[in-house]
Amino acid sequence: MKIGFIGLGNMGAGMSLNLIKAGHDLVVYNRTRSRAQAMENLGAKVADTPSEATVGAEVLITMLADDRALQNVMFESGNAIESLSESATHISMSTISVDLSRRLAQSHAEKHQDYIAAPVFGRPDAAAAGKLFIVSAGPAELIEKYYSLFAAMGQRTFVVGTDAPAANLIKLSGNFLTSTVIESLAEGIALMRKAGVDPRKFMEVLTNSLYPAPAYKTYGAMIAADNFEPAGFKLPLGFKDNRLLLAAAEEASVPMPMASLMHDRFVAALAQGLEDADWSAVARVVFKDAGL
Amino acid sequence: MKIGFIGLGNMGAGMSLNLIKAGHDLVVYNRTRSRAQAMENLGAKVADTPSEATVGAEVLITMLADDRALQNVMFESGNAIESLSESATHISMSTISVDLSRRLAQSHAEKHQDYIAAPVFGRPDAAAAGKLFIVSAGPAELIEKYYSLFAAMGQRTFVVGTDAPAANLIKLSGNFLTSTVIESLAEGIALMRKAGVDPRKFMEVLTNSLYPAPAYKTYGAMIAADNFEPAGFKLPLGFKDNRLLLAAAEEASVPMPMASLMHDRFVAALAQGLEDADWSAVARVVFKDAGL
Amino acid sequence: MKIGFIGLGNMGAGMSLNLIKAGHDLVVYNRTRSRAQAMENLGAKVADTPSEATVGAEVLITMLADDRALQNVMFESGNAIESLSESATHISMSTISVDLSRRLAQSHAEKHQDYIAAPVFGRPDAAAAGKLFIVSAGPAELIEKYYSLFAAMGQRTFVVGTDAPAANLIKLSGNFLTSTVIESLAEGIALMRKAGVDPRKFMEVLTNSLYPAPAYKTYGAMIAADNFEPAGFKLPLGFKDNRLLLAAAEEASVPMPMASLMHDRFVAALAQGLEDADWSAVARVVFKDAGL
Amino acid sequence: MKIGFIGLGNMGAGMSLNLIKAGHDLVVYNRTRSRAQAMENLGAKVADTPSEATVGAEVLITMLADDRALQNVMFESGNAIESLSESATHISMSTISVDLSRRLAQSHAEKHQDYIAAPVFGRPDAAAAGKLFIVSAGPAELIEKYYSLFAAMGQRTFVVGTDAPAANLIKLSGNFLTSTVIESLAEGIALMRKAGVDPRKFMEVLTNSLYPAPAYKTYGAMIAADNFEPAGFKLPLGFKDNRLLLAAAEEASVPMPMASLMHDRFVAALAQGLEDADWSAVARVVFKDAGL
Repeated sequence: MKIGFIGLGNMGAGMSLNLIKAGHDLVVYNRTRSRAQAMENLGAKVADTPSEATVGAEVLITMLADDRALQNVMFESGNAIESLSESATHISMSTISVDLSRRLAQSHAEKHQDYIAAPVFGRPDAAAAGKLFIVSAGPAELIEKYYSLFAAMGQRTFVVGTDAPAANLIKLSGNFLTSTVIESLAEGIALMRKAGVDPRKFMEVLTNSLYPAPAYKTYGAMIAADNFEPAGFKLPLGFKDNRLLLAAAEEASVPMPMASLMHDRFVAALAQGLEDADWSAVARVVFKDAGL
Repeated sequence: MKIGFIGLGNMGAGMSLNLIKAGHDLVVYNRTRSRAQAMENLGAKVADTPSEATVGAEVLITMLADDRALQNVMFESGNAIESLSESATHISMSTISVDLSRRLAQSHAEKHQDYIAAPVFGRPDAAAAGKLFIVSAGPAELIEKYYSLFAAMGQRTFVVGTDAPAANLIKLSGNFLTSTVIESLAEGIALMRKAGVDPRKFMEVLTNSLYPAPAYKTYGAMIAADNFEPAGFKLPLGFKDNRLLLAAAEEASVPMPMASLMHDRFVAALAQGLEDADWSAVARVVFKDAGL
Repeated sequence: MKIGFIGLGNMGAGMSLNLIKAGHDLVVYNRTRSRAQAMENLGAKVADTPSEATVGAEVLITMLADDRALQNVMFESGNAIESLSESATHISMSTISVDLSRRLAQSHAEKHQDYIAAPVFGRPDAAAAGKLFIVSAGPAELIEKYYSLFAAMGQRTFVVGTDAPAANLIKLSGNFLTSTVIESLAEGIALMRKAGVDPRKFMEVLTNSLYPAPAYKTYGAMIAADNFEPAGFKLPLGFKDNRLLLAAAEEASVPMPMASLMHDRFVAALAQGLEDADWSAVARVVFKDAGL
Repeated sequence: MKIGFIGLGNMGAGMSLNLIKAGHDLVVYNRTRSRAQAMENLGAKVADTPSEATVGAEVLITMLADDRALQNVMFESGNAIESLSESATHISMSTISVDLSRRLAQSHAEKHQDYIAAPVFGRPDAAAAGKLFIVSAGPAELIEKYYSLFAAMGQRTFVVGTDAPAANLIKLSGNFLTSTVIESLAEGIALMRKAGVDPRKFMEVLTNSLYPAPAYKTYGAMIAADNFEPAGFKLPLGFKDNRLLLAAAEEASVPMPMASLMHDRFVAALAQGLEDADWSAVARVVFKDAGL
């Protein structure tokens, strides 16, 4: 299948490679060209502009850092929405706002293009291994049609409805849950440390009884070890997603005190110079408050 | 083995029965005698007083509702600590305060008795099925010696150290984590409902990707269905455990804002008449705040 | 003095009238023309466009509802910044974001125009009575030069620095303080009510001892009476100011948990249909949480 | 009038001296005898035990540090409730729990003694100057009868009802309000500092406009100067009062999120070694969170 793929960051690199391995023809674009060129040796064609990656593609996949980057590619300097063919499909896999997803749905409809929102759960290693969890929403027959693409990138694809922004809301809410897991583990581990109990014992109990879940294992180990590097998911990105969630919650008139608490934690973490650490480094703020 | 077993509530009933099935001689005591009598047909001897259940026992197991009940049995009207033999072992399985556990450790040591703290994770159905998770702390050789008792009651027994109160702290912290899971799911599900996304889709994604854990499945289903009865674990009990956690955190000088948030939620839930509902009914407060 | 005055809402109406009474020549503009026409009988000239109110004015005063309205007047359809003379002075009295104030400072400098930020504390009755508190920042000699204008509108004018956005930050922070006073009074009064103590006794003690301050008297009386109408300052406006404060705090990397709590309260109040009530109606959310 | 006065700490010393100056016969007791002896030169008789200060007194005034101290004097080793004459009146001026006040009301009634709760607002300098604000509750005719005593100690006496514990609840709630003022000022001042605005300008605006109140002046100055010594009211005492408030709120089923936030702040402040500072030093925790 002829696929335009825009965005070759930590996540996009692995995802696009898995599509190439699955036999698809990719035209890739990345703002920092060197990352795109690395893909060239692996079989991709490198585009000089977003438009070039879009023209003639049956499917356009975008995997960018944030709303601004995607907006820029689709509507502004990149203007991919103009170069995308009628009846082509845009599969938007970035973690973006519900608002932008709604705007994309509308704009594509006006251009007689199709639109699927398909954000993912998983860190870069899962992207590389084709083990992402994909949350898709959009026209049912199209999701089915492009199922093989999802299968190449993820271990499981959920279909959550026909209204695309629903997938983005679920993605943001999933990240919200993970942020609260980080905070609650950090508070519990601070308590263990100050009470003289080995936090690894605490994590051993949790992850082998009620919480045998990846997030508990990954973050519990990092927080218990008080080691937040290398960053699998950088703190400012976690902060951004929290902001997008709070915006969606405000629009729907839903007070979310835990999300507000996380907002404050992210602000404090940035005030304390943790912008390059993994987002689980909000635990450092928790530890500091406890005098650790 | 000759075992005194005090406390035949929803949890203790199943646990004691599993010990009988494993071939042990139980003398059981319960304040409400009728519950003890039910055990008589199943092979237990029924005691009229806590002392009577204690005299001559190699092991005393207690599974009571709260600090007050256990204190009453051990130190006050029941005075089991006086009737327990020297070199007998008290296995305290109730969810109690770190403080009371420390006091028991001391008192038993003064009487040349042994003491193991072994609180459990699991709801009444897990107790009945012998599928509890047991968190034990105390003298290592004794935990090993009585391992078969734990095996009769639980699917897995963790040994978290030699200082008994550590087990109680881990138990309370585990319940704290679960309370935060309830709250974060409630906030997320409130958002789904108001944004017009099916909360069951949200839970399907979560429990099949990052959160394939019992707590998420059980509570997610209850909250998504907005149905909190029958109560597996009553709201006032969850509130009590939160209070014990906050007391331990205060003693260790650890601020725990999420635990404080849960405190406020429990108070609000009681103010709104939810004292007979499952503790996950704090979600009702979340829903109400969101105008649902 | 020849003054253009844009924005004749609840606040601007009283303020502009006081300037007319002080003998100044006003050209007024209001989007809803009827409000401007009422001023005509009182001696103002009515402009059909923002530009018309601006051309030839020595001083332009703006008193609009929010960032969007001011932006629209200054930069977009109104484009007052183009029609304002070189060396004229814009006195911006609306409660706006620190960001927009910074942008105005820059834009006026580029046009060789002067800029003073002078937001106010006080409700419509204070505006009508010329009893506002004015917080000014900008070039010291200009603030002095136009002191008589401030004196016509307010009972006291503070000069807080030469960097205009400082005045906006202080204004937003003042509103933040008032929102926390509302919340703390609401929590205290909820406690009085449920404990059977007359909340008016509570307020009598407070406002005659440690808190003999207008905000305590005004809001204490409203909350104790559980009566939030008529709205002196509507809830959505309070919410907007809270949002602007949180944006400024985020930019400066300052976690403000009380502001976050107020955010959640405003969202809940809107979810519960209180958009037409005074902002102190967040107390209703507090009461509801307490089962009142 | 023959008065027994128990408790000569920072507050009690000034209060008892003002009673002596007003011509009353005082028998004083203090656990640390040296403080009582200092009163001897000023005309007081020094008692060796609480009982000795109580026997034959028409009025017993107590001004102790906390529940435990008062309980000890009244019911335990001091046993003043036994030595107090029938028909004598106990005026309890300490900041104590609603619960203990209720217990005192009951116990005195059983002994045919009278009981007035009359806690005070004001710091040690106000106690010395006879400028306290006194909040009284109890039998109306008795409060009137002993009005001259209140007049000797305070600048104003409020009568809030006939049920004594109401006065204690109002006192605790007043301290709660002050703690929230400290927090909101600290958050605002942190924002000023990081945004480069002089916090003293901020305080000048506030205390000369909407908040011309003692608490804002006193605490605003301390927080703006980041100087919390000497301690007028020590942090652990503020924490204690917060705990008593939360207990009363829990009993009345009133969620008080601001009080919970303050709880967390006090815990963090103690974790960070601020136990000897003024309670407004919770601002240090706010500053630290903001990276200051």
